[in-house]
Amino acid sequence: MSVDLKTAIASDVARIEQAMLDDLALSATDTAPLLAEILRYGLLHGGKRIRPLLMVVCYRICGGGADKGGNEAGVDIHRLAIAFEYLHGATLFHDDVIDKGLIRRGRPSVHVAYGETAAILAGDFLHARAMLLIGRGGGIPALDIFCQATTALVDGEFMQLHNARNYNLVEEDYFKVIMDKTARLIGAACQIGALIAGAGAAEQEALREYGLCLGCAFQIIDDLLDYQGDEAATGKAVGNDFCEGKMTLPLIIAIARAEEQDRQRLLEMLAHPEERKDRVAEARALIARYDGFTLARQKAEGMIADGLARLHSVAQGEVWPERAVLEALAAYVLSRNK
Amino acid sequence: MSVDLKTAIASDVARIEQAMLDDLALSATDTAPLLAEILRYGLLHGGKRIRPLLMVVCYRICGGGADKGGNEAGVDIHRLAIAFEYLHGATLFHDDVIDKGLIRRGRPSVHVAYGETAAILAGDFLHARAMLLIGRGGGIPALDIFCQATTALVDGEFMQLHNARNYNLVEEDYFKVIMDKTARLIGAACQIGALIAGAGAAEQEALREYGLCLGCAFQIIDDLLDYQGDEAATGKAVGNDFCEGKMTLPLIIAIARAEEQDRQRLLEMLAHPEERKDRVAEARALIARYDGFTLARQKAEGMIADGLARLHSVAQGEVWPERAVLEALAAYVLSRNK
Repeated sequence: MSVDLKTAIASDVARIEQAMLDDLALSATDTAPLLAEILRYGLLHGGKRIRPLLMVVCYRICGGGADKGGNEAGVDIHRLAIAFEYLHGATLFHDDVIDKGLIRRGRPSVHVAYGETAAILAGDFLHARAMLLIGRGGGIPALDIFCQATTALVDGEFMQLHNARNYNLVEEDYFKVIMDKTARLIGAACQIGALIAGAGAAEQEALREYGLCLGCAFQIIDDLLDYQGDEAATGKAVGNDFCEGKMTLPLIIAIARAEEQDRQRLLEMLAHPEERKDRVAEARALIARYDGFTLARQKAEGMIADGLARLHSVAQGEVWPERAVLEALAAYVLSRNK
Repeated sequence: MSVDLKTAIASDVARIEQAMLDDLALSATDTAPLLAEILRYGLLHGGKRIRPLLMVVCYRICGGGADKGGNEAGVDIHRLAIAFEYLHGATLFHDDVIDKGLIRRGRPSVHVAYGETAAILAGDFLHARAMLLIGRGGGIPALDIFCQATTALVDGEFMQLHNARNYNLVEEDYFKVIMDKTARLIGAACQIGALIAGAGAAEQEALREYGLCLGCAFQIIDDLLDYQGDEAATGKAVGNDFCEGKMTLPLIIAIARAEEQDRQRLLEMLAHPEERKDRVAEARALIARYDGFTLARQKAEGMIADGLARLHSVAQGEVWPERAVLEALAAYVLSRNK
């Protein structure tokens, strides 16, 4: 993240962090001490808070949060925004149980530290708490968007299960999954921010689409970093997705474009899980030969351009600082190396 | 269940069932086919639908569902009520993963039939769908009650984890857990039914308390059946809770009342998990000697009496058929043998 972007968002990120601390302290008075401890462990150690931040910024872009004299007014948007961090946390707790993920944000994941039972239950708690916060603060229209993004997220996971070991995936399958698994929740954060500020349907839709584009681009870059990232920066082994047989965009593009012999070679490597680990370099070379990485990056760049165009259709006039944040976040998605 | 009660509720149970079928068909159009299959498998094979039924009946008791001429009117209460069955289903899916429960309603439980990943995710889906239905149909006040009952449920699970291997539990600890784990959701079903019918705070509170009493009594009888039930009827091995070292009311009462020698004997049996299976008959005899079963049943009877008193403070005049259903449900809770 650039220094400028970090500075621009520092105050909001701090307020989101504080709102989360306050809410956890509040809900912890009713809760079992172990649950409170797990929630702090799982939520308060790292995380970029991108989703709540997007909600706050979109709220302001649409004129929320200031009275006529320019003073802070309206709902406690930071408190409301933590619903997105809670839902994200619930997803991570459950995903780490499902994927047997051992490390999260540089520490043992919740189920490793506290057991599977605790991880499943704490995720359920966050789910319910998130819905409560969104409903109380944003009303039924906000709840509706939030819940639909949540059910879509589960849908996306099931599509991914369904696609497993299908090495003939096309780009459309890939985009359906990342839309549901990643992008819709980010789109929902942007849209709900606009909704709560009282924006009309057109503005809400434009910011939602900005969020969808940002989310898709984010996931494409994530999948590129898996092949091309610096292990020291990402903290993950290069080629991990390939070793697991995960069909991400660079590989899908390469298989679609490769000459028959190379296509068969890639499919053969995928068909032999035990050999994949030793074939990462070869797979990378084949993907590169058919421009899988370049074309995937171009897709991400195209989506960011689309997202910015949607943003520019909304954010005009006096809202420059917030618009600059969304532009910088879009640039960050493309430039990040971890 | 008595024939009269079965007849009285048959039409509502059928409409709840139909509402669930319709909603699953509706949400299945967006969802991955496997998810839709799991939801049907986990939700549509058995289950008494007590929670949604209570919501529907309390709604009518408070004057919901009929216009001035006595015709059906108002919200689609059966559709709304399935939120409680969804939440209950989500809880069962996750509980069976947690407890490694292999059989549910006479068939392999969801995680056995479809895997842990699918069971966790399908539970998350039902969670979100339940919140959406309650929010859309009942507004924020209903959502508030629903979410708080859900977070309490998780709290109760954590309290139970916390209490595990504590053989000095007192009755208060037991009641705190069953209140959070079982009763609050049943109380919420009754209260939300009243709320949606437009009942005032006093009526809502009275029906909520009826539900809390019913829920607590239900759980006490469940715990009694574990020691005294007919295995053929309950489908569970007698003494299962004792073998797992679970501190339920009969055992707590007996330990509190026993003479020192017998108290030590019970604690010693609990301290040796591997021997418990062969000590069930001895434990039962000791619990009976100190009236653990009789006194626990009396507690359940007392709670049912309290619940009926609260009910009678509300249901008067033209609502007799619904009041009779709630009375019959209360009687059923005490008389059931499975």
